[in-house]
Amino acid sequence: LSVPGCVREVFAVPSAARAHPDIRAAADQPDRRVHWHVVDDAALASLAETVRPQGLLAVCRFLDVGYDEVLATKPRLLAVCAEVRDPGNAGTVIRCADAAGADGVVLAGSSVDPYNGKAVRASAGSLFHLPISLTADAAETVRRARDAGLVVLAADGAGETDLDEAADAGLLDGPTAWLFGNEARGLPDDLAGAADHQVRIPIHGRAESLNLATAAAVCLYASARAHRDRPAQPRA
Amino acid sequence: LSVPGCVREVFAVPSAARAHPDIRAAADQPDRRVHWHVVDDAALASLAETVRPQGLLAVCRFLDVGYDEVLATKPRLLAVCAEVRDPGNAGTVIRCADAAGADGVVLAGSSVDPYNGKAVRASAGSLFHLPISLTADAAETVRRARDAGLVVLAADGAGETDLDEAADAGLLDGPTAWLFGNEARGLPDDLAGAADHQVRIPIHGRAESLNLATAAAVCLYASARAHRDRPAQPRA
Repeated sequence: LSVPGCVREVFAVPSAARAHPDIRAAADQPDRRVHWHVVDDAALASLAETVRPQGLLAVCRFLDVGYDEVLATKPRLLAVCAEVRDPGNAGTVIRCADAAGADGVVLAGSSVDPYNGKAVRASAGSLFHLPISLTADAAETVRRARDAGLVVLAADGAGETDLDEAADAGLLDGPTAWLFGNEARGLPDDLAGAADHQVRIPIHGRAESLNLATAAAVCLYASARAHRDRPAQPRA
Repeated sequence: LSVPGCVREVFAVPSAARAHPDIRAAADQPDRRVHWHVVDDAALASLAETVRPQGLLAVCRFLDVGYDEVLATKPRLLAVCAEVRDPGNAGTVIRCADAAGADGVVLAGSSVDPYNGKAVRASAGSLFHLPISLTADAAETVRRARDAGLVVLAADGAGETDLDEAADAGLLDGPTAWLFGNEARGLPDDLAGAADHQVRIPIHGRAESLNLATAAAVCLYASARAHRDRPAQPRA
């Protein structure tokens, strides 16, 4: 209920309704117009897509906003996912972006639907916390981010710039859009090449790579740290 | 085949055998004594636990080593998972630990079996790259790590030390064991309290937390960076 007007209906089993009087009270506020339905376990199980539903299910409106709107906020940190296909990955990237203080997440190209049940659950509420935008053309998304003054960094295992060196060189200090590719194939060369820099996470052991969500966490937290340090350590 | 003597048998469909002559050649080396079986798709599907097997399946011996052996290598970076239950998480932590250059992963207490098929697949080969140790008692595991001269850092969302501040203060510079808890409940207070420091990843947005694997990635990479920087930037 943190996004005003987002929740339209709630379906709850009696025990869950009793366990969460605060949610019931919030839904009952006259300006919210939330329809509250008490249902039995079988009905809830047929509505929920998961094996063990938590007894409470909300029907929400779509939340995504236009890419224009996201860029108009002068974002300092964006996560752009191109052709991300696994809903768990998309949701986890949204959760990491939220945790790292990002100002938005863009799902570009033929990326997975962020309203997929697995994506919603993996986001652990973060879907409601920061602007999500869906764009059709990943190359155009990159171009417009650069036009808006963001430095676009492509996370690319074959990138010529090491993440630590990028941080040391101040490449992370300004407004940044991280570009992440498909979990199996990574970023196509032309899209990675459209970014300002191709940045690789250093691999110190023998792993070939990190998976998408953990790579995104490491990159976004490197940016969060650079942005946090920046007021205290201005560039020479 | 990167761990000598590890692979005992290989089951391959004809197309996979043809596509990977290098694997066949390695298996055929007389000192390896690998039994190679050509099977059809139906037989392979019944052996593999996954929906879309890759056509090639190896039977390997167990790989875990004693905790004594791990500590005897004077590790600089360890990941200790206590009561981690999800096999995908365990495998992903092993992959991240490998990528970050850790010297071992310990699965302590009632953690998931690292030989679970999902854990093996999530590790993306890293199960074969660094020592894995299974210990029964997480508190004893922490005590022995400290006795061996490792600084034990508990990753704890309620920790009093911020990860960035820990890095700035030099807390990550020495030999370090990161302690990660259960994905749902985190670390029990007594176990977190047994660590030298309780470290929280700063949450800059509105997410309540990161998931286990992404939190482990951020912590282990913070250590990797501190260890990498250390020769160049000795403490005052």
